[in-house]
Amino acid sequence: MRALRWDGNRLELVRDLPCPKVGTGDALVRVRLAGVCRTDLEISRGYLGFRGTPGHEWVGEVLQAPDAALVGRRVVGEINFGCGACAACRGALARHCPTRRVQGIVAADGAFAELLAVPAGVLHVVPDDMPDDTAVFTEPVAAAFEILEQLGDVAGATAFVLGDGKLGLLVAQVLSTAGATVTLAGHHPEKLALAERLGVATSEPAPGADLVVDATGSPAALARALALVRPRGTVVLKTTVAARHRLDLAPAVINEVTIVGSRCGPFAPALAALAAGRVRVAPLVEARYPLDDGVAAVARAARPGALKVLIDPGA
Amino acid sequence: MRALRWDGNRLELVRDLPCPKVGTGDALVRVRLAGVCRTDLEISRGYLGFRGTPGHEWVGEVLQAPDAALVGRRVVGEINFGCGACAACRGALARHCPTRRVQGIVAADGAFAELLAVPAGVLHVVPDDMPDDTAVFTEPVAAAFEILEQLGDVAGATAFVLGDGKLGLLVAQVLSTAGATVTLAGHHPEKLALAERLGVATSEPAPGADLVVDATGSPAALARALALVRPRGTVVLKTTVAARHRLDLAPAVINEVTIVGSRCGPFAPALAALAAGRVRVAPLVEARYPLDDGVAAVARAARPGALKVLIDPGA
Repeated sequence: MRALRWDGNRLELVRDLPCPKVGTGDALVRVRLAGVCRTDLEISRGYLGFRGTPGHEWVGEVLQAPDAALVGRRVVGEINFGCGACAACRGALARHCPTRRVQGIVAADGAFAELLAVPAGVLHVVPDDMPDDTAVFTEPVAAAFEILEQLGDVAGATAFVLGDGKLGLLVAQVLSTAGATVTLAGHHPEKLALAERLGVATSEPAPGADLVVDATGSPAALARALALVRPRGTVVLKTTVAARHRLDLAPAVINEVTIVGSRCGPFAPALAALAAGRVRVAPLVEARYPLDDGVAAVARAARPGALKVLIDPGA
Repeated sequence: MRALRWDGNRLELVRDLPCPKVGTGDALVRVRLAGVCRTDLEISRGYLGFRGTPGHEWVGEVLQAPDAALVGRRVVGEINFGCGACAACRGALARHCPTRRVQGIVAADGAFAELLAVPAGVLHVVPDDMPDDTAVFTEPVAAAFEILEQLGDVAGATAFVLGDGKLGLLVAQVLSTAGATVTLAGHHPEKLALAERLGVATSEPAPGADLVVDATGSPAALARALALVRPRGTVVLKTTVAARHRLDLAPAVINEVTIVGSRCGPFAPALAALAAGRVRVAPLVEARYPLDDGVAAVARAARPGALKVLIDPGA
C-alpha cells in the first residue's frame, strides 16, 4: 500500500509498504479522508522522536474487525491506544495510559496511508448522512469538547479564545454551543471574517473574562491570557508544543487563576455536534490533495495562516 | 507611636509617628503580637513598591470601633481591604477587589507597629483561651485553608507538599485535617524532623500524586511539581514572588494538569482549626523580638531556613 513516511529526516510517499499488521482486537480500516494537524507539522520538526506514518485525523471504512457488524461501516477513531489494563484504562481514561501508543504520534502508524490498523475499541461509527469532509473533523472537535469535559458547565460565562486558527475556530463554536458568550481574537482578517460567518464574535479582548482559551499554538500566549482573565477565572491551554518560555506566574497566584492543560477529548459529543450542525467545519477546509501529493499537502498545511488541508487516499 | 518603616531604601524603627488615622468604619487596634512573613522580606527588596509599615500577620486588642461590643476584644484581621462597592466586594471576595488596599503590602500600613487602623469588617474575634502566639498564625493558616476553599474535597487524595518552610508545614497540616494523605518534601533535616513531630510524613516524593502544592517560594518548583503530579491531577501554586522563569508547560497540557494559583484565605476555618488544635503552630516559632529590635527581627526571619519570627510591641 501507499503511505507518507517520516524517517526522521524527510517525509516521503512510499508506494510498496506491506499491509499494516492487524493484531488481536484490531480492525483494519481503509482511509477515506485524513486531515493535516499542527502536530503532524511538529512531527516533521522532530516532535517526540516519532518515526513512521503520521496522521491522526481521519474517517475510513472498516475492512476487517473482531465484531463483524463493524465491517463495511464508516468510522472515526480515537487516537490514544491504552494498554487496557492499567488504572487509567480501567477508569476509561486510556488517553492518559502511561504506556499508551498514540496514532501517528507515538509508536503507532497513522492515517496518511491507504490502510490503517487500530484497536477496534477506539472506533466510533459515523452517521450515514454525515459527509466524509465533516466526519474527518471529529478528532479536533473532540479536542475542543475536552474543555467542556474538564470545566463542566460554561453556560453564561464570558470566554475569550486566543488564536483564529483551526483549533480556535472549533473551540469558539463548541463553547458557544455550551452557552458561553464567546469572543475570538486573532491576527488574520480573513479568518476573523470566517469566524463571524460561523456566528462567532471577534474583537480585541478586554480584561475580565471568566474563561480564556489559548489556541494560538504559542507558549507566549499564556502571559496574555493571564492578563485577560478575571481573578478566580480559568485559562485553558491547548498547546502541546514543547517549548521553554520565560514566564512570570505571580499574576496567576495573586489573581488565583486556574490554568487547565487540555488535550484529546471525547468523540461522542463531537460526532453529535457535527451531526446536528452545531459545529460547522466545511468553511475550514482550505485544500484537498490526493495521497500521492501528500508531501505537498503537508507543505501547504505548514503555510502561515493555513486552514485545514485534507488528504484523500482514494483520489 | 513606634513602628517599623520601610522608606524604599531601608527599614528602620521610628519612635514619634502620629496615631494612625481612624477613618469612618475603621477600628483602632493595639498590636499585641505580629509575625514576619516572607512577603515582608520581599517588601524590603522592593516588592510592589510598598512604602510604609509592613506586617500583616498579627493579633491585637480593639481600642476603638464603630461597634462598641468589639472594644476590648482580642482580634485578628483579614489583610485585603476592598472598596466595598465593586462586584468582587459585593460577592464577598474583597480579597480580589481590583482597587483593594492590602495591609502592609499595598497602600495600607501594617502591623509592625504599636497601633493599627483597619476596616472593622475585616476583624475576627479570637477565642478567649487561644494564646496570642497561636492567634498570630491565623493569617498564614487561612492561606493554607484557601487551598481547601478552592479545591473542595481532598479527602482520600494523595498530596505532596514541596517546601518545608513555614507555609509548607501549615499547608501539610491543613491538608491532613481535610483527610488527604500528605507527604512533605524539603531540604532541611531539622524542619523535616519538625514535620514528623507534627504528624506529617516526609520523604522524597515519587510521581503520581493527586495533588502537589508548591510552598517552596521558588518559581523553579513548578517544573518539579508537574513531574510529580499524576495525569489530570492538580498543582497548587502558593508563591506570589514575581520572577520570570523559563518553563515548558507542554507536560501540563499533555497530562491535562490543573494549576491553581492560591493566595489569601478564609479566617473562620483557620481560627476554628487553631482553636481545636488540629493545626499546631507553637513548634514553628523560632524567635520573639520586642518592636524596638524589629529590624533585627526581620533580619533574623531572612536567614535561610528561618521559621516564624514574632515581634512584640508590648515587650
